[in-house]
Order: sequence, then structure tokens, then C-alpha cells
Amino acid sequence: MLEPKPEITYSDLIFNPIGIISSPYKEKFGIPRQPGLVTEAQATLTLLPPYNQPETVRGLEQFSHVWVIFVFHATHDQGWKPTVRPPRLGGNARLGVFATRSTFRPNPLGLSVAKLSAIQVQGRTISLVLTGADLLDGTPVLDIKPYLPYADALSQASAGFAQETPPAMQAVSFSALASAQCEQQQARWQTNMRRLVEQILSQDPRPSYQQGQPQGRVYAMRLYDFDLRWHYTPAGIEVLELSSN
Amino acid sequence: MLEPKPEITYSDLIFNPIGIISSPYKEKFGIPRQPGLVTEAQATLTLLPPYNQPETVRGLEQFSHVWVIFVFHATHDQGWKPTVRPPRLGGNARLGVFATRSTFRPNPLGLSVAKLSAIQVQGRTISLVLTGADLLDGTPVLDIKPYLPYADALSQASAGFAQETPPAMQAVSFSALASAQCEQQQARWQTNMRRLVEQILSQDPRPSYQQGQPQGRVYAMRLYDFDLRWHYTPAGIEVLELSSN
Repeated sequence: MLEPKPEITYSDLIFNPIGIISSPYKEKFGIPRQPGLVTEAQATLTLLPPYNQPETVRGLEQFSHVWVIFVFHATHDQGWKPTVRPPRLGGNARLGVFATRSTFRPNPLGLSVAKLSAIQVQGRTISLVLTGADLLDGTPVLDIKPYLPYADALSQASAGFAQETPPAMQAVSFSALASAQCEQQQARWQTNMRRLVEQILSQDPRPSYQQGQPQGRVYAMRLYDFDLRWHYTPAGIEVLELSSN
Repeated sequence: MLEPKPEITYSDLIFNPIGIISSPYKEKFGIPRQPGLVTEAQATLTLLPPYNQPETVRGLEQFSHVWVIFVFHATHDQGWKPTVRPPRLGGNARLGVFATRSTFRPNPLGLSVAKLSAIQVQGRTISLVLTGADLLDGTPVLDIKPYLPYADALSQASAGFAQETPPAMQAVSFSALASAQCEQQQARWQTNMRRLVEQILSQDPRPSYQQGQPQGRVYAMRLYDFDLRWHYTPAGIEVLELSSN
């Protein structure tokens, strides 16, 4: 048997972002809990100097998907916790942080796979258009790696409580006002806004501990440059408005 | 469309290893180029203080596989290159660093998936036994995340030149001496040493530019605490000896 290493000290490791994310998600609340659940969402990863050279992404167009290793910048000053309460378990069970993808990690590193929809090169502005990413606007990116199906796609892997895709729990309907606003916003953002809103809200962004609570409260999340407002009815979620202010 | 972010400055990000790898691979030469190709190789990931609490891995046993995010510590002081020559392309074509999994990256982060064979807790010594990992002995680990098949296993993904598993190129035979030594080492390390050596060498660890070279030269790589020596014959690779010194 291999002996475990004795305690070692290691000098600090310093990393620099190689890119930055622009995304419709302006706050943590409402972001899907895993990538791929909201396929209408598009994000842009723009390379920062000195990495903004066309050479660094040469050949990347041969890959349909990429891994993005990023920093949980919105929560990383809150430190880590040995255990967390995963939403998949209703928020009732505590699991070790390394058994979850919680943001409150010893090193606040995130790992997401996204569809690589386009690579845009305009002089020194080099951007990857990513579809289905669950990334907050302004996220610093540390690395991009090609997705290799022969090594990464382990369809036989088992994952206990997290084996299956989370079911879309909620039916989503739109008020007349919200429907009209979706049309307007769709033209501005070149996104199927109605489908994007449906995909985000059908996952029910509320924390698990609120999910049994009385209806009536109006919830809001920031999306693009507007507030998306909805409430819960006996028939499911009703989108009230997409309000700019 | 989302506007790319303007150039931003971001304060340096400092990370600390949460664990350290013990593995049979003592040098970069000979390590399989992707995880999962050498299924006989076992590595141990031992948590470092203050992360060596049984709480941090609670529930991890429900997952068959884990992601390991680590540092390419053996090469990270050599910096990064905008383009690299992937072995899969015979070492002749230059691709962007972000289109490869080369070690010479702007941030020297590695990403490997491994089978989680066991979790060992003995007081404050907490170790994960990982099978099939392509990790150098002494590798500092920054994060462990559960493998989630519904999000991570994209069997439809396409990957151009890297679509298929690299073929095992070389037949491997053993000298009488090497066969006997495999038996001895097998008992010491509780590993099917013959199969491990076959799996490593059948991938042909030589750099691509040497692969057309004349036969006869003896190659060696460090494995566990011995040197594995082999040469090339018209029939393939012959393992010469497993020499301790």
C-alpha cells in the first residue's frame, strides 16, 4: 500500500484570471444549480490580457463543449464550511463540502461544462459564446479545457442522491404584462426570453426551507438589466413582470 | 447581445492545497495522457489540515467517481505557452493552449476524474483511494467535487481530433527477469503489477517525435520505488527489468 504523505507545507499558489464572464445572471439567487439545466441562457467569456491572442484558442472550434474553471467571486470572502445542506436533499441533511458542489469551499473553485456556440475574434477582443452555463455575470475564469468525451463522459458513474436530473418542479405561466415584456426584451437581447424565464423558474429558485411556505409573496431576481418578478399560485408559478427601473 | 466586459483588474487569488497525492508515478514521463487509461494505477489523496475532518467527506461514499482539481506542480515554474503540440496530432500541429489539456497553462490547473475506490478515516488521517488517476506523486490538490452523471456525462459531445480513446499502440512482453520481478513487486504494493506495467507501456510513453526512431535504445521511468526499463523490438515493447537501486 502507498503510505499517505506526512504533513507538508506548500507555499501559497497565486492565480490570475484569464477571462471574465458576461451573463444574464446578475445575482446568485435564481442561477440554476447545475449547468445544462437552462439551455436558453447564453454567456460570453472574454479573454483578458495577455491571454487575448487568437493563438490561445486555435483549434478549440473542434470541440462542442468546454470545461470552465472559475472563481465563486460573489461568495469567496465568506470562507468555507466543513458541511453544507444540499438543496437536492431538501436542505435537511448535512453533507461534507467535498461531497457537494457548494460554493462555500476551501478554495472557491467552480467547475462547469458549457456548449461552445461560437468563438468570436475581433482584433484583441476574443470571446467564447457559451450556452447553458450557470455562471454569474462578472465571474473570473481561471482556465478553459476542451471536453473530452472518451475521458470525461462516464455514463456508468453512480451518484447516490444526485443520480438523476433534478425534475422541473413548477408549471410556469405569464401575466399579460409579462408576456408583452418578454416580446420586448427578446428583441433587445436576441434570446428566446419566454423560454429562458420558463427554464429558470421551473427549477424553483427558492431555498428549500421556503418551499413549503404560504403563497402570495412576490419574488424577484435580477436578469440582464431588469427584475424578473413572480409569485406562487395553486397552479404553479406566475410571472408578473419584467420591470426595468 | 451581451457586451464583452471591458478590461478589468482583479486582485490576485491565493489558494491553498486541501490535500496531497501519493501515487506510483514518480516523474512526468510515463504518466498516461488522460485519466482512465490505466485502470490498475491506484493513488491516495490525503487531506491536509485543517481540512482533515471526517465531516468534509461525509456522504462522498455515495459517488462512484470524483473530480480532482490539482496543480501541475512539476512544471508550473516553467510558465505557459500560447500554443502547444498535442501528442494526439503526432507532435506536428500547434494548437492553442485552451484547446488542449497541456500542463503549460496560464494557471497550472489540472482536472482529472478518478474512481473513488475507498474512503479511509483513521483519526485525523483521511484518505481517498483513487483508481485510474493520472496524478504525479506529491501533486497538491485544490478541490474535490462529486462526479454528477446528469450534468457531467455528455456522451453526445464532439471533440474533433480527440474524439476517440487513444489506441493502445504497442504489444507488451516481459523478459523472464521482469516477470519474476513483477511477482515480487506485486506482493509489496498490492497491485497487479504486470497488468499495470502493460497498461502504462501499451500507450507508448515516448514523445511523438521519437516514435519513428531506430530500435535498441533502453528507456526507463520511475514507478513506485523502482525503475521500469524497456526497449522496442519489431514485435513491440519488451520489459527488461524492474530495478531497485
